[in-house]
Amino acid sequence: MAGAGLSLVRHPDIRYLFFGEEPAIEEQIARHPRLSEKCEIVHTDVAVAMDQRPSQALRKGRWKSSMWLAIEAVKEGRADAVVSAGNTGALMAMSKFCLKTLPEIERPAIAAIWPTVSAECVVLDVGANVGADAGQLIDFAVMGAAMSRALCELERPSVGLLNIGVEEVKGLEEIRKAGAALRTCDPPFRYHGFVEGDDVGQGLVDVVVTEGFTGNIALKTAEGTAKQIGAYLRAAMNRSMFARIGAFLAQGAFRALKDKMDPRQLNGGVFLGLNGIVIKSHGGTDATGFASAVDLGYDMARSGLVARMSDDVARFHDALDLDSVA
Amino acid sequence: MAGAGLSLVRHPDIRYLFFGEEPAIEEQIARHPRLSEKCEIVHTDVAVAMDQRPSQALRKGRWKSSMWLAIEAVKEGRADAVVSAGNTGALMAMSKFCLKTLPEIERPAIAAIWPTVSAECVVLDVGANVGADAGQLIDFAVMGAAMSRALCELERPSVGLLNIGVEEVKGLEEIRKAGAALRTCDPPFRYHGFVEGDDVGQGLVDVVVTEGFTGNIALKTAEGTAKQIGAYLRAAMNRSMFARIGAFLAQGAFRALKDKMDPRQLNGGVFLGLNGIVIKSHGGTDATGFASAVDLGYDMARSGLVARMSDDVARFHDALDLDSVA
Repeated sequence: MAGAGLSLVRHPDIRYLFFGEEPAIEEQIARHPRLSEKCEIVHTDVAVAMDQRPSQALRKGRWKSSMWLAIEAVKEGRADAVVSAGNTGALMAMSKFCLKTLPEIERPAIAAIWPTVSAECVVLDVGANVGADAGQLIDFAVMGAAMSRALCELERPSVGLLNIGVEEVKGLEEIRKAGAALRTCDPPFRYHGFVEGDDVGQGLVDVVVTEGFTGNIALKTAEGTAKQIGAYLRAAMNRSMFARIGAFLAQGAFRALKDKMDPRQLNGGVFLGLNGIVIKSHGGTDATGFASAVDLGYDMARSGLVARMSDDVARFHDALDLDSVA
Repeated sequence: MAGAGLSLVRHPDIRYLFFGEEPAIEEQIARHPRLSEKCEIVHTDVAVAMDQRPSQALRKGRWKSSMWLAIEAVKEGRADAVVSAGNTGALMAMSKFCLKTLPEIERPAIAAIWPTVSAECVVLDVGANVGADAGQLIDFAVMGAAMSRALCELERPSVGLLNIGVEEVKGLEEIRKAGAALRTCDPPFRYHGFVEGDDVGQGLVDVVVTEGFTGNIALKTAEGTAKQIGAYLRAAMNRSMFARIGAFLAQGAFRALKDKMDPRQLNGGVFLGLNGIVIKSHGGTDATGFASAVDLGYDMARSGLVARMSDDVARFHDALDLDSVA
């Protein structure tokens, strides 16, 4: 609620639909008076548990759960985006079932916004599915480029395929095949070639494409490394009197650094490839983090992401002949 | 050469065999007089190029190249370990061909030492092969545990399988299968369960097991993130006069932090599963980095790594019945 309140300050034209236990929601809204004029509560006492299997969630509580009702609101045009901090697998399964994927897309992907030394990079898939064939990787590239265009207003974002070397002969067969196809066709972005794990944070490309297992591990490894270095830094700044005085004088700089490294600033995985905008917020985040996820949904909706992505995908699918490079 | 000299200071009982162009090596040794008493030069003018395909390197220059001769010296007992900064793929192919794998091991792996908030973690495979089945992952676990034992003197290191969630139902089938097998048998280490990308740097376990594609991308992502945060930190410490004064006062702390984050301190991938010790140093490193790789080879040889690993693998392979959990 506090997060929704923060986002409302930044985007006064937002309107909220809250799905869940009405008394609990009302109690929270009472603490954020501005919110009460801008929202509507849809009561339900069915919730998807965090440990529920996606297939279970789809079968059991489907029609009445807060998650389902929220997604349905997007489908019926009563909402422009759904933001949820709930069970990721269930959210994806319900989104697919309710909103359906774009006609040409077999599998949606989850895209993350990855901070880089120069700006931001869209990385996908970070965990919707394990594994992807060449055609799916190319779909991810088109979807990621559309998101990058919407988010960063880049006309022709650059796209790289994540691999374990930059030479054409390296890595998984699907990646090599996708790379060969992208070289010979005319995609709606600049195809950069293969990129490696250390290129992502350097901002070498605007979009990094990988399958969900590797993408998830890369993302979490980067988060873990940032946390680890934060711990080193705190320890280093406490090791002597000089260091403590230095840290005190440089506290403005440290605050800026902390903001830069703050995972809450870029909270929110975007489900791409669906007929609607679905944002997954980190479960463990606070108001700042949740507000970032809401902002992201707002920006995606504002930019007309789904329509543009749908156009891109349809046009490119007609032009692409993947079998010719098999 | 300077790196070899550094290691010699730390380990005065080291003796070197240098393989390559004799005049060039002699010229370099002349600058490190202490080295000249401790080394022998084996001349060859055949070198494996960095861009040569492993299969090519094996066919063409095999019998005369510096890389092959150095590996052969380990095979023939004239050296205890080989350290090379050359072509990784060729080094692995030649090592397999010349030294052979341990009887029970199908595939060697490359292990990296990953700094954590508490100590160090052995991560493997970081790029010897793409993909691994359940049996190979279990072999990696046994080999990684043996290395951790040799390196950190832990009697029963803890081992985790890298996955995209800690629940038993998540991730790739091979990983789930390996996990199920490790739960039901009695491995020569503590099996922790699944770990995620952000657990590695937190030092949750002593050994992290994954297949080579994911491992390589995780390692490079962590290196890239560390470099990225280093850049943020430098920028932050330059943004105002106070920050600069603070940074000046805290320079001792920053130096300690830099050491901690310095990838040269833990340079060297260890090829595990072979009848001999082979260390791959980063190609782009300097004397400090190369000395770390030499130190690692020294420690591995001193600890009798190969013999102990060979024992562990043989004993555990007899006890393990992977088919029963298939």
